[in-house]
Amino acid sequence: MVQNDAFRALDRQECLRLLAKVPVGRVVYTRHALPAVLPVNFTLDPDASVVLRTSAASDLVRAIDGVVVAFEADEWHAATQSGWSVVVTGQAAVVTDPAEHDRLSESGPTSWMPIRDGVFVRIEPGMVTGREVIGARYSA
Amino acid sequence: MVQNDAFRALDRQECLRLLAKVPVGRVVYTRHALPAVLPVNFTLDPDASVVLRTSAASDLVRAIDGVVVAFEADEWHAATQSGWSVVVTGQAAVVTDPAEHDRLSESGPTSWMPIRDGVFVRIEPGMVTGREVIGARYSA
Repeated sequence: MVQNDAFRALDRQECLRLLAKVPVGRVVYTRHALPAVLPVNFTLDPDASVVLRTSAASDLVRAIDGVVVAFEADEWHAATQSGWSVVVTGQAAVVTDPAEHDRLSESGPTSWMPIRDGVFVRIEPGMVTGREVIGARYSA
Repeated sequence: MVQNDAFRALDRQECLRLLAKVPVGRVVYTRHALPAVLPVNFTLDPDASVVLRTSAASDLVRAIDGVVVAFEADEWHAATQSGWSVVVTGQAAVVTDPAEHDRLSESGPTSWMPIRDGVFVRIEPGMVTGREVIGARYSA
């Protein structure tokens, strides 16, 4: 029988530790009044904000600069039906400070996609939530 | 130098073939006026709609029944900085037809999470888009 402990909420520190393990997450936002999602590679800044790099002229930047977005990352293991998911919800903003841009050019993410006129986008860690799925199949 | 061919749009058939390969995708929707995202396991129905199973009383069902959502699945390989992503955008609706419910109980998805009072939710494949990232690092 399936147990209720197949699911566990993660605290903020666990969420951030897991986020730091994976290179790709997904920006969740609204585009033309429709829900939209775009996978991007990213880094976690020391203040726990999510930083990604994209083209200044991209649809993504136009859609998310200055608005609240969600950012999701996860990892799943089909064999054990287990895994975790973390969601950061907060305001996204293009990094405009030149010193900050220079710092991120050293330590921030590169993009897996070719980019012209690259900018960094920071997503504030306003709300950080996560859950672990322990594997219903094996929790009997 | 990074080439522009590091990115390729996928046609509908390629998108559906890739979607069928992975057990987990992410429902992207709006909750309390904020962008929200929830990973779920799913199956593809023969008509290309995405089918998931969740609790009738869940926040997810309340938020998405009858509205347009996005559903995203992907696969990434960090070593080669490559992978793919597919997004299905369409109306979500709880399956209310008893015969259809019975059919999905046989062939549809099970949930990795414990569920009481389970229902199936179908996401119509109104728009199916995808892209492949071939690996900027190796496209020089």
